[in-house]
Amino acid sequence: MSIGNANVLDELVAIVGRGNVLTRREEQQAYVVDWRDRYHGRALAVVRPQSTEEVARVVRACAAAGVPIVPQGGNTGMCGGATPDDSAREVVLTLTRMNRLRAIDVDNATITVEAGMPLATVQASAAAHGLHFPLSLGSEGSCTIGGNLSTNAGGTAVLRFGNARDLVLGLEVVLADGRVLDALRGLRKDNTGYDLKHLFVGSEGTLGIVTAAVLKLFPAPHVQATAFAGVADVSAAVRLLRDLKQALSDRLVGFELISRFALDLCRRHHPSLPDPVPGHPWYALIQANDSAAQSTLAADLERALLSAAERGLVQDAAVAQSAEQAARMWALRDNISESQRREGPNVKHDIALPVSAIPAFIAEGATRIEQAFPGARLVVFGHLGDGNLHYNVAAPAGTDARAFLANTPAINRIVHDLVSAAGGSISAEHGIGQLKRAELRHYKGAVEIEVMERIKAALDPQGLLNPGKVL
Amino acid sequence: MSIGNANVLDELVAIVGRGNVLTRREEQQAYVVDWRDRYHGRALAVVRPQSTEEVARVVRACAAAGVPIVPQGGNTGMCGGATPDDSAREVVLTLTRMNRLRAIDVDNATITVEAGMPLATVQASAAAHGLHFPLSLGSEGSCTIGGNLSTNAGGTAVLRFGNARDLVLGLEVVLADGRVLDALRGLRKDNTGYDLKHLFVGSEGTLGIVTAAVLKLFPAPHVQATAFAGVADVSAAVRLLRDLKQALSDRLVGFELISRFALDLCRRHHPSLPDPVPGHPWYALIQANDSAAQSTLAADLERALLSAAERGLVQDAAVAQSAEQAARMWALRDNISESQRREGPNVKHDIALPVSAIPAFIAEGATRIEQAFPGARLVVFGHLGDGNLHYNVAAPAGTDARAFLANTPAINRIVHDLVSAAGGSISAEHGIGQLKRAELRHYKGAVEIEVMERIKAALDPQGLLNPGKVL
Repeated sequence: MSIGNANVLDELVAIVGRGNVLTRREEQQAYVVDWRDRYHGRALAVVRPQSTEEVARVVRACAAAGVPIVPQGGNTGMCGGATPDDSAREVVLTLTRMNRLRAIDVDNATITVEAGMPLATVQASAAAHGLHFPLSLGSEGSCTIGGNLSTNAGGTAVLRFGNARDLVLGLEVVLADGRVLDALRGLRKDNTGYDLKHLFVGSEGTLGIVTAAVLKLFPAPHVQATAFAGVADVSAAVRLLRDLKQALSDRLVGFELISRFALDLCRRHHPSLPDPVPGHPWYALIQANDSAAQSTLAADLERALLSAAERGLVQDAAVAQSAEQAARMWALRDNISESQRREGPNVKHDIALPVSAIPAFIAEGATRIEQAFPGARLVVFGHLGDGNLHYNVAAPAGTDARAFLANTPAINRIVHDLVSAAGGSISAEHGIGQLKRAELRHYKGAVEIEVMERIKAALDPQGLLNPGKVL
Repeated sequence: MSIGNANVLDELVAIVGRGNVLTRREEQQAYVVDWRDRYHGRALAVVRPQSTEEVARVVRACAAAGVPIVPQGGNTGMCGGATPDDSAREVVLTLTRMNRLRAIDVDNATITVEAGMPLATVQASAAAHGLHFPLSLGSEGSCTIGGNLSTNAGGTAVLRFGNARDLVLGLEVVLADGRVLDALRGLRKDNTGYDLKHLFVGSEGTLGIVTAAVLKLFPAPHVQATAFAGVADVSAAVRLLRDLKQALSDRLVGFELISRFALDLCRRHHPSLPDPVPGHPWYALIQANDSAAQSTLAADLERALLSAAERGLVQDAAVAQSAEQAARMWALRDNISESQRREGPNVKHDIALPVSAIPAFIAEGATRIEQAFPGARLVVFGHLGDGNLHYNVAAPAGTDARAFLANTPAINRIVHDLVSAAGGSISAEHGIGQLKRAELRHYKGAVEIEVMERIKAALDPQGLLNPGKVL
């Protein structure tokens, strides 16, 4: 095997140049450990191709030598999907040098980019042409669009624009045998056979390596309105969501649920942030955008909130009067995770449910967690608009946060059993990677798993693409 | 084989009852000939199961006997995808008795229906709960939602709501071996492995038989605005589309292009229909909807059209002043195909292009068709908003329309070569079926075809699901 490995390293050097085949441990470090320092691997080499042709040749060389490949974007994943195992036999293939803008078509409202382009650069490239790429996540400065597609990233605008997969029109993919599937079409209707792009999106590099994509663009938002509403309970938030969808239609872009506990936690660590409407058990953070320069959006949102207040759905609400006020409302939401981290580790869940099932889930989850772990603190927030909750369980106040992590399997079982019983998902937007592979097998139906395995075997018969991830 | 067939027929009778196994030619007629009377088959039997379990048992019986299955919905397809071959060895499996509403979830904005429910019934079921299912096609009274999903149907609201696949959250599918894949989840975010639903949607029954689906619903449109605008050329229509997307955002639901020739053709056969803005070479029919009861939509549309007129994009425009006026504007669009049929057969194309490529395509197409077939009449119209044109070529005036059809292959080659060179699709919304199977092989890349074949072999190794369709 070592002779074979030496040969394949020589081939990789011949393809991408010596400076782009990293074999020393210290130069690999940024690629073999995930950003949260939870997964640690070792790689035969980290390879940095800069073109589709180079990716294809790297894959052919690895396939011939039987060397597994771990594709990687910005290495910002939450589930260890881009970290190699510790065998030092896998090659990490980073797409970060493939970061070119290939084309922008304003009349077709599409942009064609390479996989390694950072998400923020895709957004900026669209904005430079008066258009809008709506995918937006916390890591957008460092994550890549290829990583976003491989994990079908979500974020805060899914309610209006869908997940990453909904923003893709065409893909270029290097297959497991090194052939290039060129389906870089910028078409909104195309019924010529099976839709292969949706198979590669969300498959976390286990079926092929996305090297470029044609993405949908939208009119730039000209007018924005943001509000913070206090509600009595989660059911009221669900009814408010329904009313706002009717009143604002697709101008409603985001609808975030925040518990008072999560808000207090955030303000404890960020005391300069406001408390827009003090004294309610739950909050909805509402974002509405309009592409029209002449828009009645702010008035429409205020009227809808007033109407909801009259019917008892909203207890109190504040509408941001400036972009700065809006940013500070969003900071309350965006700093929850980081504030919670400062208090110590916790058991995180990224779950989705039918929106209608969320009130009962939150009530029942609180009861069951309290029964099993009295005093455990729940930090509940998330994208209520698309049924996605971040549901984090922390140790009781004054106890050892790290020791509490030993309860992770038991807590996962409580939360995921409830989610599963309600027809929900144990991974709403973060994917499976290494982290949730066993949970996937536990909860997914046997038929679905077997169909996935058949597809994996059909497209990657040697099993060399990101082994040990997803399936 | 005949003994085997007798056995399988007995089994089918045991599963669905004698009255639901149609073996006599006259009782099969409605199922073995397509509605346009272009494809004629013969079936071993037409089987009418009424539950998922019955479908599964029928498929298991057929799989054991090696009998191919042709799934069928409302039999309204355009490409012969639901018609059996003439061997009398295939079973037609019609889903029309599986037509129940399983659930509607207003807070989650989803509806769960069986495959055989007519599209119009899905729409009505949603409307009965104050919600909106936006898929809309000419055949909506007789087509089924299962057929819509199997062909990824399009229609006139794709610009705003996407194709049929974009409206699906979950599926129940009977696989080729008779097992049931139960993925009837009503989730807007779910990243637990490969997205199998997108593989079955649009695969025309060749990978599995869709028996039920969870569909997305939307707020009901409360305010509607319709306009008819005359433009100087197709480029102006493309620029107008861009402006209206900016001005109306997602309230812009439809943007149809109609040539003056197509309009005249329609009015010749429907003289009572209006000529809203006489004397322009091209027209845009514009539909905008708003779910808010208090909406400035009509004023916003008028202002946008006025602004476009000031900049020379629009030559003249009429905004409908009543629902009846709006309906008559739409009748001009909806009756083009039927009017053209009254003048005799023609060579039809259902194509998609990047919107930006459409002006050059229309100009070049006219030149090449005229060179090859002087005097041939082009009827060009379609969903410009999503790049989908219906591009029909009829015989020169005064010549034999039926004899002209002998030129179909040569005309297809001219049109599809141009479409392909512009990165377009030879089947935008009608699918492949039998009709375009050879064209698919001609134009699709070899790698894409081979990946499709591998997936087909993985999911239907015996090749018994709708053989001879798509691939």
